[in-house]
Amino acid sequence: MGLLGETLTQILIPVAAIVGIGFALLQWLLVSRVRVSADPDSGLDNGCSDRLIEEEEESVDIHGVAAKCAEIQNAISVGATSFLFTEYKYLSIFMTVFGAIIFLFLGSVKGFSIKSEPCTYNKENLCKPALANAIFSTVAFLLGALTSVLSGFLGMKIATFANARTTLEARKGVGKAFITAFRSGAVMGFLLAANGLLVLYISINLFRLYYGDDWEGLYESITGYGLGGSSMALFGRVGGGIYTKAADVGADLVGKVERNIPEDDPRNPAVIADNVGDNVGDIAGMGSDLFGSYAESSCAALFVASISSFGIGHDFSAMSYPLIISSMGIVVCLITTLFATDLFEIKDVTEIEPSLKRQLLISTILMTVGIAIVSFVALPSEFTLFNFGTEKTVKNWHLSICVSVGLWAGLVIGYTTEYYTSNAYSPVQDVADSCRTGAATNVIFGLALGYKSVIIPIFAIAIAIFVSFSFGAMYGIAVAALGMLSTIATGLAIDAYGPISDNAGGIAEMAGMSHKIRERTDALDAAGNTTAAIGKGFAIGSAALVSLALFGAFVSRAGITAVDVLSPKVFIGLIVGAMLPYWFSAMTMKSVGSAALKMVEEVRRQFNSIPGLMEGRTKPDYATCVKISTDASIKEMIPPGALVMLTPLIAGTFFGVETLAGVLAGSLVSGVQVAISASNTGGAWDNAKKYIEAGASEHARSLGPKGSDPHKAAVIGDTIGDPLKDTSGPSLNILIKLMAVESLVFAPFFATHGGFLFKWL
Amino acid sequence: MGLLGETLTQILIPVAAIVGIGFALLQWLLVSRVRVSADPDSGLDNGCSDRLIEEEEESVDIHGVAAKCAEIQNAISVGATSFLFTEYKYLSIFMTVFGAIIFLFLGSVKGFSIKSEPCTYNKENLCKPALANAIFSTVAFLLGALTSVLSGFLGMKIATFANARTTLEARKGVGKAFITAFRSGAVMGFLLAANGLLVLYISINLFRLYYGDDWEGLYESITGYGLGGSSMALFGRVGGGIYTKAADVGADLVGKVERNIPEDDPRNPAVIADNVGDNVGDIAGMGSDLFGSYAESSCAALFVASISSFGIGHDFSAMSYPLIISSMGIVVCLITTLFATDLFEIKDVTEIEPSLKRQLLISTILMTVGIAIVSFVALPSEFTLFNFGTEKTVKNWHLSICVSVGLWAGLVIGYTTEYYTSNAYSPVQDVADSCRTGAATNVIFGLALGYKSVIIPIFAIAIAIFVSFSFGAMYGIAVAALGMLSTIATGLAIDAYGPISDNAGGIAEMAGMSHKIRERTDALDAAGNTTAAIGKGFAIGSAALVSLALFGAFVSRAGITAVDVLSPKVFIGLIVGAMLPYWFSAMTMKSVGSAALKMVEEVRRQFNSIPGLMEGRTKPDYATCVKISTDASIKEMIPPGALVMLTPLIAGTFFGVETLAGVLAGSLVSGVQVAISASNTGGAWDNAKKYIEAGASEHARSLGPKGSDPHKAAVIGDTIGDPLKDTSGPSLNILIKLMAVESLVFAPFFATHGGFLFKWL
Repeated sequence: MGLLGETLTQILIPVAAIVGIGFALLQWLLVSRVRVSADPDSGLDNGCSDRLIEEEEESVDIHGVAAKCAEIQNAISVGATSFLFTEYKYLSIFMTVFGAIIFLFLGSVKGFSIKSEPCTYNKENLCKPALANAIFSTVAFLLGALTSVLSGFLGMKIATFANARTTLEARKGVGKAFITAFRSGAVMGFLLAANGLLVLYISINLFRLYYGDDWEGLYESITGYGLGGSSMALFGRVGGGIYTKAADVGADLVGKVERNIPEDDPRNPAVIADNVGDNVGDIAGMGSDLFGSYAESSCAALFVASISSFGIGHDFSAMSYPLIISSMGIVVCLITTLFATDLFEIKDVTEIEPSLKRQLLISTILMTVGIAIVSFVALPSEFTLFNFGTEKTVKNWHLSICVSVGLWAGLVIGYTTEYYTSNAYSPVQDVADSCRTGAATNVIFGLALGYKSVIIPIFAIAIAIFVSFSFGAMYGIAVAALGMLSTIATGLAIDAYGPISDNAGGIAEMAGMSHKIRERTDALDAAGNTTAAIGKGFAIGSAALVSLALFGAFVSRAGITAVDVLSPKVFIGLIVGAMLPYWFSAMTMKSVGSAALKMVEEVRRQFNSIPGLMEGRTKPDYATCVKISTDASIKEMIPPGALVMLTPLIAGTFFGVETLAGVLAGSLVSGVQVAISASNTGGAWDNAKKYIEAGASEHARSLGPKGSDPHKAAVIGDTIGDPLKDTSGPSLNILIKLMAVESLVFAPFFATHGGFLFKWL
Repeated sequence: MGLLGETLTQILIPVAAIVGIGFALLQWLLVSRVRVSADPDSGLDNGCSDRLIEEEEESVDIHGVAAKCAEIQNAISVGATSFLFTEYKYLSIFMTVFGAIIFLFLGSVKGFSIKSEPCTYNKENLCKPALANAIFSTVAFLLGALTSVLSGFLGMKIATFANARTTLEARKGVGKAFITAFRSGAVMGFLLAANGLLVLYISINLFRLYYGDDWEGLYESITGYGLGGSSMALFGRVGGGIYTKAADVGADLVGKVERNIPEDDPRNPAVIADNVGDNVGDIAGMGSDLFGSYAESSCAALFVASISSFGIGHDFSAMSYPLIISSMGIVVCLITTLFATDLFEIKDVTEIEPSLKRQLLISTILMTVGIAIVSFVALPSEFTLFNFGTEKTVKNWHLSICVSVGLWAGLVIGYTTEYYTSNAYSPVQDVADSCRTGAATNVIFGLALGYKSVIIPIFAIAIAIFVSFSFGAMYGIAVAALGMLSTIATGLAIDAYGPISDNAGGIAEMAGMSHKIRERTDALDAAGNTTAAIGKGFAIGSAALVSLALFGAFVSRAGITAVDVLSPKVFIGLIVGAMLPYWFSAMTMKSVGSAALKMVEEVRRQFNSIPGLMEGRTKPDYATCVKISTDASIKEMIPPGALVMLTPLIAGTFFGVETLAGVLAGSLVSGVQVAISASNTGGAWDNAKKYIEAGASEHARSLGPKGSDPHKAAVIGDTIGDPLKDTSGPSLNILIKLMAVESLVFAPFFATHGGFLFKWL
């Protein structure tokens, strides 16, 4: 038994979650102090109590600006809310249908019998009937789905609440704007981490009321939570990704390329759709995604633990080790956040990126200590873990190493991503330089950069896998994934910061704010591109570990003892699985392309048919563009979604668990590469363009200014990168996770009824 | 015992090889009838004995044209020969060093002992000492390397011999030009297939003089032949690929984009380098590549067979089954060729593609019959095969199915590739259509097309693997690969046809021939792009099967009984292996990009500093551009080459055979996808551009003409596709094959001395 008793565990976890939620609300309160109002009387002096020099110099109409900001923010918020509700309407149908499938498939394992049976691993105990597992898995699925939706929705709400506030704060200086954007990101990060933990904690305790001593059944059912979280994330990412990039690409192709008007110009009819997209794709989608990773890694760890010595020995504290790690993570991130918001002040744009990087480093160092503490108090000093048929004796400090190696691998991935996507280093500068000879070389160099950026993260993941498996078998991998995600609150904060800044820039442009303000928001945004890429790096790295842990759990649950590549059943699964990320990317990229073409036509139509639009005398019809993005994304998210959801069902039912295991391994090892290269290539192109636009160095100025040939080439690269980095790339990590967790949930069905094609042959 | 006795086998194989060589020489003779001469007196009426209407109509100076064609052809030939000799100079150093490594590594397995030892599989026999295997493996390696070099060199010679002849024949009509180009391709195809067979056959018989009864040792050593073939192919493909694309991209970026002069315009200083590149990359590189595949699949099949019942029972005919299949292939291809050259006549450009497609179909149907015959006469009606520790009883018709399924999978891959890269179908037309909105959508749609084009080939490969493994274990997969390559002569003929036509078009442009001639060569070239893509599809598909067979042979030789993905040693190999194609692509694409930038600078310099160049009054300095391409490709081929050659050595020596097995499986399943998508994306972009240029339909005309905005966007796509389709994509299949065959050759060393890092930990 560990030092921590059950009572203390039962207190600490919810307290940490509540502290997290409280901290998020506090940040929200601080952000809300920046007043934005469409009513000039009340909002007149908002944020301007300390009259600013820049404001006076450039003599911008303060009343008008604040009112305009409020108006635009409102339009974005309404658009985003309306899209998410439309999306959720369709998703609720999906949830109902898929919930029924889970119930039917799992219920049929023992023919809907209500008889208790001897447990699989602890033969002396009686376990609850399969029908109960079917019901509770379905309930867990629905809970996970709802929590995921809630995470995305709340993130979107705070982001659309904060974007105009960031713009207005930018008048006071870059430091103030940074803090506003960062605090808002933190709201999302903490709400999500704390909510995910709390719902999971409550579910476990409620499920225990029924399951009692049957922990195998309990934690088997809980895996449904991960499935629910990830399946919502899939649609959120894909739907949101198509939405945002259809609008973005469409707006850029006509606005920047044909009409030569700046990005985010209010005359562009697709501009509101573009900004809405940032919130539904990069914020809501990302939130659901990382929540999914978090839920899945917790579930994978809990499931594997339930068949270890502390699962069988009913040691609740040790069993709750994954949840305690997450609780510690919330506390660590809380301290880390103070470094950004209170202990250091940003005075210059060059300090933004270092400050965000520091966040990663601080949280990692603090968390390493936290992990050691948790491991010593929560775990018995020695225990046994299940290792595919054999047992492995593990010490508590072994697990501490497993979690830490995941955490540090995350940092390595984050820093590598930063190196390859930030315009402060040579890779992006080389890409920018290649624009001299046109768009073609820009694309060639960008693709090469993306490919190259895969190397270090893969080695980091490989080392993390090897070390954590050596020390803690599959449980080690599951907690390594959890380690990488333990600082999720900070990760999400710096990640959500990106689209908020992007929107802030958009609002500044649309509200007609001065060049100086725009420069500041641009600097925030450039750092945001990098942090978004870092966030994606984390998402992908953790997805790889999570999937492997889920894969291990699936293999245990399906009763396979080896996944031998030399078996043709496995190998064909492996090669087809490795193909799936390509199939999926083809679908999503084509969807973005087609939706963008529709958007282009509409934007062109408006420019051609609305008199006075180019001169800024009439307003464009924003709503039609919003509708095009909405319709396209709802319609186009179905085929890729079906591909991901159906593949495990088809492979498992027709070809059996061995082929399915091959598919999972194949899609994992191949998908990780495609995802990392796609998101880094896109991030690099975006920042290469920003590098030329900002003209901060001799070299950068030689490529610019805006509108020069190299800049035009850079814009083309940026546009190509959009679907790569925001649609297909980040959706891929959901593909690999989701297929793994779905296989895990359905494993009993596949193991009993699956593979009938081979049986028949 | 099969029906065919040893004596008959010993006669049939060399006879088939000699017939193949004879047929190739006959085709060469026929091509040489078209006279090309720089001397106007002798070459005056070449090919014009039947005075042509077109010629008269357009009143082109006949003397001048023929002389000019001869001059250009000569320049290309000299450039190509000179490059290949430079390349071979460096490769001979590599061969010496690597030969020494093979000798030392394999010799050290038993400490350079010269004692005979009991055989591994047939314990009663005494096998030759490990030192002998080290020596013979090295010899086989050198033989393979030399044959590979010879294949590439001969291909280049005939191609540079045929290109101007094709141009001149184009004056008589598209049919004549097609036959000339196709015959020349056939020369290469038959020479390569027959040579490869003959050298292998002679080596086996010579090695037998020493090995006598020790067939295990004999066929183990013979695997060195595959390694030699493939390692030369790697450098040929990478070096040639960088050469050709540096020149091509460099020429296009300045010529087409900046100076607005047509492709292959003689004023462009890089134009000769570009044409040389087609011959050293697409011809010599491709020849070495497919020879490597052929040699490896034969070696893999022979090695696996040597430990089967007919290996142990010393049934030479059954043992030579792979060679007899190849012999039959030569005969079948010979008949098939007649359909293209003698039985049907091409009268219109629209008939070119169907005719080439028909070649694939005819050869496949005939070969299916041929396979059945060979299986019945060469194999005993029942025999046993080694299957990772167990034995499997197999009937001769089972093997017939294995070979056929490989063959038909090849056809499916070929036809799929054609569908995705030919501008006769909607995928390429959609890509062309997306050029309306600029280069960005073109690239997005092109990438999506490439990703999508992976689906069917992967399923075809998966089915071929499953069927052939089910019927014939690893031997089944080896002969399936051989089945796919059995029609290699035809495959290479239609493949080599592409660059020959491309060159013919270039020569027509440079010699100032009329628009009509250029239209014909363009049509030949467009079909050539598709066939080149088909050839790459074959190369990749067969590489997948070959690698798997080699992988199986490696696993047998290294004494592993299972490659379990659940073992972390294997899994880290798998994920790192899946990353290698990205690392490799990053290197090669960056190399092309950098070399192209150098080329751009040189071309710009010449345009700016040579007076009268743009007006066509002075000649550009072609030689400097040739030198830039040569230097760049020699220098840049080393890092990717080192990556491929060193990875198995490092993985095997430090991490051991299990991790290495993971690396092989990972690079196989991931590399296939990257390779197929890269080469199809590139092919599609090239043909989308050609589709707009040709303007053969209402839709195509709405996008054109040359110089329109959509056309410019299409040119950008084409340029991006160049390194994808001709450098990184096709090199990847060598990466996966070569690592597998290298592991196979070094397996005894890794099994005894390898994995010391894990041992040490």
